[in-house]
Amino acid sequence: MSANFSFQRQASCSHTQARAGVFVTPHGIVETPRFMPVGTLATVKTLTSAHLEEAEAQMVLANTYHLHLQPGEDIVAGAGGLHRFMNWKGPMLTDSGGFQVFSLSKIRTITEAGVTFRSPRDGRIINMTPELSIQIQNTLGADVIMAFDECPPYPAEREEVVRATDRTYRWLERCIKAHQRPQDQALFGIVQGGVFLDLRRAAAEKLATLDLPGYAIGGVSVGEPAEFIHQIVKATAPLLPEDKPRYLMGVGTYREMAIAIASGIDLFDCVIPTRLGRHGAVLVQGERWNLKNARFRRDYTQLDETCPCYTCQNFSRAYLSHLMRSGEVLGYTLLSLHNVTELIRFTKRIREAILSDRFTTEFAQWLDSPPPQAAEPC
Amino acid sequence: MSANFSFQRQASCSHTQARAGVFVTPHGIVETPRFMPVGTLATVKTLTSAHLEEAEAQMVLANTYHLHLQPGEDIVAGAGGLHRFMNWKGPMLTDSGGFQVFSLSKIRTITEAGVTFRSPRDGRIINMTPELSIQIQNTLGADVIMAFDECPPYPAEREEVVRATDRTYRWLERCIKAHQRPQDQALFGIVQGGVFLDLRRAAAEKLATLDLPGYAIGGVSVGEPAEFIHQIVKATAPLLPEDKPRYLMGVGTYREMAIAIASGIDLFDCVIPTRLGRHGAVLVQGERWNLKNARFRRDYTQLDETCPCYTCQNFSRAYLSHLMRSGEVLGYTLLSLHNVTELIRFTKRIREAILSDRFTTEFAQWLDSPPPQAAEPC
Repeated sequence: MSANFSFQRQASCSHTQARAGVFVTPHGIVETPRFMPVGTLATVKTLTSAHLEEAEAQMVLANTYHLHLQPGEDIVAGAGGLHRFMNWKGPMLTDSGGFQVFSLSKIRTITEAGVTFRSPRDGRIINMTPELSIQIQNTLGADVIMAFDECPPYPAEREEVVRATDRTYRWLERCIKAHQRPQDQALFGIVQGGVFLDLRRAAAEKLATLDLPGYAIGGVSVGEPAEFIHQIVKATAPLLPEDKPRYLMGVGTYREMAIAIASGIDLFDCVIPTRLGRHGAVLVQGERWNLKNARFRRDYTQLDETCPCYTCQNFSRAYLSHLMRSGEVLGYTLLSLHNVTELIRFTKRIREAILSDRFTTEFAQWLDSPPPQAAEPC
Repeated sequence: MSANFSFQRQASCSHTQARAGVFVTPHGIVETPRFMPVGTLATVKTLTSAHLEEAEAQMVLANTYHLHLQPGEDIVAGAGGLHRFMNWKGPMLTDSGGFQVFSLSKIRTITEAGVTFRSPRDGRIINMTPELSIQIQNTLGADVIMAFDECPPYPAEREEVVRATDRTYRWLERCIKAHQRPQDQALFGIVQGGVFLDLRRAAAEKLATLDLPGYAIGGVSVGEPAEFIHQIVKATAPLLPEDKPRYLMGVGTYREMAIAIASGIDLFDCVIPTRLGRHGAVLVQGERWNLKNARFRRDYTQLDETCPCYTCQNFSRAYLSHLMRSGEVLGYTLLSLHNVTELIRFTKRIREAILSDRFTTEFAQWLDSPPPQAAEPC
């Protein structure tokens, strides 16, 4: 690991694999476990960078696929890189575009070389390869960049998943070779393997032999039952190096984060807090409410009296309900701000509980809770 | 005028009718001349109340017609009134709904009693009368409330305008009678008269005999050439009491505000800064630019280096252009914040120029500028 990156474990849970740590990056630290908000197009939807600071966001994501299509990585580089372009001074992470190429492009061809697809923006043909993904990410300049992987759908035949997992490993080797900025950008490898635990274990063991600065578990939250995610994490996370950050991609619900942390996960991302916010849904102390519901029309109390966010400190549920019923953009902003704050606070509280070794008692509600009906794609 | 309201003139221009003053209301002062942002549904579109404070907004508008339909004035009253509902601690003004009833309702019947129309929201029949408008405004609780007027379209026959102007006066008398909170809400009368200057003058003189706490010129910015607005203001404003605030409704372009101030206008409102912002247009030092224009794609300079707003201090034109090209809500917010700040700053600079008697020299650019092709409806 470059001198610019390190991961220190500060505390371990006596009863689970949970751990609290500090991930050091060139743009600052990430205290783990931590939820990371997603800023797809170099904007966490509806929120200013000042809002993200208020929410105590540390690492913020952006999407390689989206930024390559608009505005193009050269325009971001012209601003001095992603941090300056979007005015985020803290750590940043870009995904590789692998997940988006597979989930968003209807017409695509996968070969060993890479993926060919038609841009949904302007129709031009794009040949996305491991090398191009890394080149784009080197140009964008996030602190953490992700390997270009093949993400099989769910459900998928075992043979299809074997092929994708093996290819993901070969693509990782090409990504490592293509990476031009290892001193100031940490390249994370991604464990694939679908819902086949033996494939997951083999992939994790193989990746662990490479001295990467961080590891991710990908290809989850693609429609499979939530329990599958937990089985995958439980089988995989302990095989990844203890002294490196572990990132579970695309997961950001209370229960799923708590259970994954118990298996040793450090980092999470999900679009759920902003997506819910734009639809009138809020996360309050573990529950999900729809503010368009009639019961909130005359509810003049704070959204969450325990929450320090600007929304909760200044506006009533009745006002927020009115904004959402009226389709007012301010409603999207205020609810997104609260939801992002809430998920960050949730992981901060877990971190504090791990530091004082009270994780399993304080979060028993989540660790022992029944599974949701289906995992929500994030 | 109630002891809770006063208007003090601080300075007068040596060459024009322009004046600088202070309008005192129960929720604070308004330093005039001043642009007032419009918060139709108890939200200045896309902006938080913290943003409005940053923009140095003083008085903020809300719309009686819109709030009556959603959420209903009783829900606003339940929060403790409009200020608390939307978290705006400064002065507020509600319009009467007169303009909206005439401009937004397709099916309506006007009689001496009032206007009957079908709610575009839920189809129910609403009988809006001067008494109901004042009752709603008394319930909403803004510092300034407006008389319910009949606003004739442009163009209109003289006889139609005569009828509307006479009716507006009779409705004003009913509004005064219906007003239940004269101590903490100032009722402004509205001068109508279309583009007929003799009707405007007669209406202004008649209104001036009533000891109202403020006066407005309404029925402008309805599609007529901008020069007509200036003729109307020039003919009307000097006939209104000197010791009361004068408000030109629905006007908020640089040139039109500067010229109206030269005729003695103190207050302005317009949705233009937020509407432009949502469409990618910005007001920069007297010009209007569309940030989606190709020339801004790689323009890494500040939007306006002289502007203190959060947008100009933190983001480049290239980033703002990217947000607008991507349809990102953050773009609407950042541009609206700048545009509102800019129009408030413009009226603040005029005020400072009047205070030092340099108005006609410093703003000659606007006072002598050629007319735009058509006034923009606000």
